Amino acid sequence: MSQPDTNHLIAAVDARMAMATRLLEDLRARTPDADGAGVTRPSYGAGEQIGHDLMRAAAGDIGLEVTTDVAGNLYATLPGHNRAAPRWISGSHFDSVPNGGNFDGAAGTVAALTAVAALKDLGIRPRQDMTAMAIRAEECSSWFTGQHGGHLGSRAALGLLQPSELDTAIHVASGATLGESIDAAGFNAGTVRHGPAPLSAQNVAGFAELHIEQGPVLISAGVPAGIVTGIRGTIRARNAHCLGAYSHSGAVPQELRQDAVLATAELIHRVDEHCAALRQRGHDVVFAVGRLHTDSKVDSLSKVPGETTFTIDLRSQEEDVLAQLHALLGTLSVEIGQSRNVRFDLGHLALADPTVMAPAFRARLQDGATALGIKAPPVPCGAGHDAAEFVRAGIPTCMIFVRNTGESHNPMEHMDVADFRDGLLLLTWFLAAMAKAQG
Amino acid sequence: MSQPDTNHLIAAVDARMAMATRLLEDLRARTPDADGAGVTRPSYGAGEQIGHDLMRAAAGDIGLEVTTDVAGNLYATLPGHNRAAPRWISGSHFDSVPNGGNFDGAAGTVAALTAVAALKDLGIRPRQDMTAMAIRAEECSSWFTGQHGGHLGSRAALGLLQPSELDTAIHVASGATLGESIDAAGFNAGTVRHGPAPLSAQNVAGFAELHIEQGPVLISAGVPAGIVTGIRGTIRARNAHCLGAYSHSGAVPQELRQDAVLATAELIHRVDEHCAALRQRGHDVVFAVGRLHTDSKVDSLSKVPGETTFTIDLRSQEEDVLAQLHALLGTLSVEIGQSRNVRFDLGHLALADPTVMAPAFRARLQDGATALGIKAPPVPCGAGHDAAEFVRAGIPTCMIFVRNTGESHNPMEHMDVADFRDGLLLLTWFLAAMAKAQG
Repeated sequence: MSQPDTNHLIAAVDARMAMATRLLEDLRARTPDADGAGVTRPSYGAGEQIGHDLMRAAAGDIGLEVTTDVAGNLYATLPGHNRAAPRWISGSHFDSVPNGGNFDGAAGTVAALTAVAALKDLGIRPRQDMTAMAIRAEECSSWFTGQHGGHLGSRAALGLLQPSELDTAIHVASGATLGESIDAAGFNAGTVRHGPAPLSAQNVAGFAELHIEQGPVLISAGVPAGIVTGIRGTIRARNAHCLGAYSHSGAVPQELRQDAVLATAELIHRVDEHCAALRQRGHDVVFAVGRLHTDSKVDSLSKVPGETTFTIDLRSQEEDVLAQLHALLGTLSVEIGQSRNVRFDLGHLALADPTVMAPAFRARLQDGATALGIKAPPVPCGAGHDAAEFVRAGIPTCMIFVRNTGESHNPMEHMDVADFRDGLLLLTWFLAAMAKAQG
Repeated sequence: MSQPDTNHLIAAVDARMAMATRLLEDLRARTPDADGAGVTRPSYGAGEQIGHDLMRAAAGDIGLEVTTDVAGNLYATLPGHNRAAPRWISGSHFDSVPNGGNFDGAAGTVAALTAVAALKDLGIRPRQDMTAMAIRAEECSSWFTGQHGGHLGSRAALGLLQPSELDTAIHVASGATLGESIDAAGFNAGTVRHGPAPLSAQNVAGFAELHIEQGPVLISAGVPAGIVTGIRGTIRARNAHCLGAYSHSGAVPQELRQDAVLATAELIHRVDEHCAALRQRGHDVVFAVGRLHTDSKVDSLSKVPGETTFTIDLRSQEEDVLAQLHALLGTLSVEIGQSRNVRFDLGHLALADPTVMAPAFRARLQDGATALGIKAPPVPCGAGHDAAEFVRAGIPTCMIFVRNTGESHNPMEHMDVADFRDGLLLLTWFLAAMAKAQG
């Protein structure tokens, strides 16, 4: 990058660092969770709205154009020469899991706003609009139960939300549908349902998301930031069951039992072993059963358990690995079901394909890291992010990870200001390059 | 058996069948549970007392001596020539699990009373006392929580109850200690605590218990009754834990996880496979994990689970099999704990040795079955019973099972009157033989 030169860009970002850190600290102070340890910002709820209000006020102060879409996503835009040209977007979310960390989502939203402010401060007039976006309901899995495909705000904006999800996603506290929750927050579920969607591959040139890392890879590597190679695809079962029959745990011979726990343990252990073998052959795959319960209303030490309820979360960057594991789940459920006289009902197996970050953008980010003297190696991304939805909508996308020295989805989450600055510098450098390259 | 001849014995039992069935039906009618489907008779509670009252009245009508002991166990005795000689006892319990079946316990108590009545009707004057016993609190695991070793009524009578259990067994509804519950029911916890115990190997010549089967072995065999070979011993963990660490189920590499569910599934599956191998080599063993839970306050689809809570119930008729499994649990917890970076805390592993029914009594019962033309093959007993406590006290003991065509600990429990009569005939024949053999 030559124009604006790197030193000017660094100076412009540093001049905006006070605004960025104040926004993050105001947000933390105004969304404490009940126990005071972390933050709680429900999707389409008060905490998320506080983030949007803070960003709207800051964007006004910077002098950006502020709009919202039908699903409540917020856009703060530095206008380009050609307002009709496909625009550039950077952003993330403000909502959090219950008792979560301050920076998961908010770091990327504030970084996007700060980067666009720095471009403006540098006097850059991009050819196309450069927009910072605050996306709704990324953490919706914590706040909406029922049937839905997650990432509700970005999917609504991109036209990827099925209309039925407006009715089948149910708020865990209020019991309202997603559609009712969107209307109650002051937006327009009817237009979300019938379209048109505001964002598409036709009107968005590219998307960049900065996000705190949710794993320990950057800590292990000893680097402040990383350039994401791709986001893992998933196979998820929210409500899997094994159905056997309750009986006396002493009096019934083992061969006459229909033991749901022994069958479930075999299924889990065999999937676990299969994944370990895949990893040993160099493949990418992780597996977790986050929830596993017998029925506490009827279970007992001295009863053969007649039912289990559990979740499945399989992730891989390789589409064929996910296809293989999907087939394995089917085969094993039938085989173990027959041999143990139980029935597995895995419920809806939600599939999300792995997504690949645009190679040209990754290369450009690497150029930026070199120009800025920031260590930012390529890293895989195991968790889901709004960025994956932009890829699914056919929009070239990239992600920057910032080191998390604590834990994820947890009050122990921690991001050093110096690491945030490195990630923000990289994002600003990249957006400046995009503004010019296409300007 | 020649004296009294078999036909006279059958006639005497049949003459008492109306009394027996009326007692069982009165008991059912007077102890319905809340939903009307089964019966509910809490240990040291109203339902159990109704059973004792019915038996006391019937024993008076028959002309037997009626006494109670310090723990509230009821004795209905046909006096022998030598009142000081070690007496014979047959009996079972009146209490039930919540929403249980009518015959679990009550069939054996009523059968004992009816058999002793038939001996009296036949004009038998035994050398030693022949006693029908109604035992308290066999189903106490449903009614008393805290620390106790179960079978509270028989263990109190036999001096096997630890004094501390009077203080550490806590009634699930009233919160009273066992000692307070015994006193509140009109008996004497102080004497239970300090002794002497009323029953011992010195003053009891033998014990026989008739009980409805709690498994399907007699149904599978197509026979009305069975002669129990032994009662399985147990290894039980009421509160086992696996402790790992919560983390993000996508972002954390598998080798850095401390996944409590994958570790628990491996432990369960490997114990299961070990038990299957033991059974294949001809050993007796059953295994159940009746309760298994992640922590529903913090678990989630997208979290690596940091903790599981579960139970272990291992049973075998072979002491060395139990010893081997006890060692296996220790080895596997350490091995899996190390390989998966979690810690197993299995808590207190309660051990109860297997008990063997007296071979001489089993042979005599087989003679009786042959004489009466009743099919009663040898059967193992998987569940715990008061009979096991008599064995532990050094008293020669035997058990008769009667076919259960429904389920156990369940309103679906069912016993045909014809099957009950077969079991009762066998018990009466046996007690008559014991009255004579030692007379």
